[in-house]
Amino acid sequence: MRCFIDLAYDGTAYHGWQRQPNSISVQQVLEERLSDLLGEPTIVVGCGRTDTGVHASSFFAHFDWAGAFGTRFADWEQMVWKLNGMLPPDIGVHRIFEVGERHHARFDATERAYTYRVHTRKHPFLEGRSARVYQDLDVESMNAASRYLVFNGDFATFCKAGGGQKTTLCDVRLAEWRSEGPHRMRFDIVADRFLRNMVRAVVGTLLEVGRGRMSPGAVEEIVAACDRGRAGASAPACGLYLSRVEYPFIST
Amino acid sequence: MRCFIDLAYDGTAYHGWQRQPNSISVQQVLEERLSDLLGEPTIVVGCGRTDTGVHASSFFAHFDWAGAFGTRFADWEQMVWKLNGMLPPDIGVHRIFEVGERHHARFDATERAYTYRVHTRKHPFLEGRSARVYQDLDVESMNAASRYLVFNGDFATFCKAGGGQKTTLCDVRLAEWRSEGPHRMRFDIVADRFLRNMVRAVVGTLLEVGRGRMSPGAVEEIVAACDRGRAGASAPACGLYLSRVEYPFIST
Repeated sequence: MRCFIDLAYDGTAYHGWQRQPNSISVQQVLEERLSDLLGEPTIVVGCGRTDTGVHASSFFAHFDWAGAFGTRFADWEQMVWKLNGMLPPDIGVHRIFEVGERHHARFDATERAYTYRVHTRKHPFLEGRSARVYQDLDVESMNAASRYLVFNGDFATFCKAGGGQKTTLCDVRLAEWRSEGPHRMRFDIVADRFLRNMVRAVVGTLLEVGRGRMSPGAVEEIVAACDRGRAGASAPACGLYLSRVEYPFIST
Repeated sequence: MRCFIDLAYDGTAYHGWQRQPNSISVQQVLEERLSDLLGEPTIVVGCGRTDTGVHASSFFAHFDWAGAFGTRFADWEQMVWKLNGMLPPDIGVHRIFEVGERHHARFDATERAYTYRVHTRKHPFLEGRSARVYQDLDVESMNAASRYLVFNGDFATFCKAGGGQKTTLCDVRLAEWRSEGPHRMRFDIVADRFLRNMVRAVVGTLLEVGRGRMSPGAVEEIVAACDRGRAGASAPACGLYLSRVEYPFIST
């Protein structure tokens, strides 16, 4: 049977989601512990990739399992409980459930949301969980600029060269900054799909606006140019969270 | 002149606030960096103690400084900026300001508030910042029990033996549990003063109620008994935050 896992991880200690030789990834740790739990080698397929140091507050993956559920677990909750006990503290499983045989964690996702957290004063509890910016930011200007990002079209400006995508078209449905308390703010962006490094390039550009080094109108031109050289530098990984993934067959 | 510092710290790496031989404390680190910054040996006096591993989202301390402010700093903000640059990431200074010569961080505090955070599902981002409880909790019962804690009187039941306090009288003005999202909650308690280990003993007892092992009414009897042997075990340090300290001469 095919199962979906809904999980969260603090990405600080990992070289991203995707398994790779010679460095530790979330996928590798999850596959190893799940294989131990199920008693057979198990591959998990993620809903996408996250880069080194990027977090996920909600990440989906699927795996196939031929074993007899009832002989091994009383219920799904017990399976989650056992897996969580085997995983390190920085990876937590919310739930595991059966889906249709053809449901796919990556190809069936219809919408994804990322959150980027920023703080502008030293904050002991945000260390590694939010990006520190050494200057006050003009949130109103950043939101004025963000409105030029909400459209269905070409986002090549914010695509890392060599990203390997076939197309740079995305349907961005929301892009908005909000306060999260004094000297703290978050940026939420929702789209059908994201290009490699896209959110960090978008945030890096919007922070230039927030610092007063670029006008909101300049962002409109930069987007239209479809030229990665014109976007701002990528914002740091530690502020970025994959925060929501939508599937037509899963209610949240 | 006498100055107040308003700071925050993640207590995970420290053996509490108070300086002591052979183990690192927040007070020691702050005194060392402040002495470097001011160019003279500087003693800081805290608003109270926090135990090993306990956090503070707002902590006050005072120090005296004979130096000429204007020759060393452009303004208070620059002083805060420089000190924050010298302190480790887990200690952050919010502000420094001059007070009257006789104002005292410990003796002049009129009210203190602590927050205790609990979560009942594995959560990668709450690791070390909230206490994990391995059972769902009945928040309504915990709040029913909390009402027996709001009075002005003897809290000897929740005082660690050998705490060294002259009196076990406290004026508890608020004690309340609130949801902070799915499977997350916080307990806020406000009083004129707190006894050693008091909040962790109170929370340990209320968690027994939340688990269904003790009735809310039993808490009323336990409080009245003034016997530490009858309170629950101390809740873990990692969930506890000193969250507010009030002075009549400081507006927050």
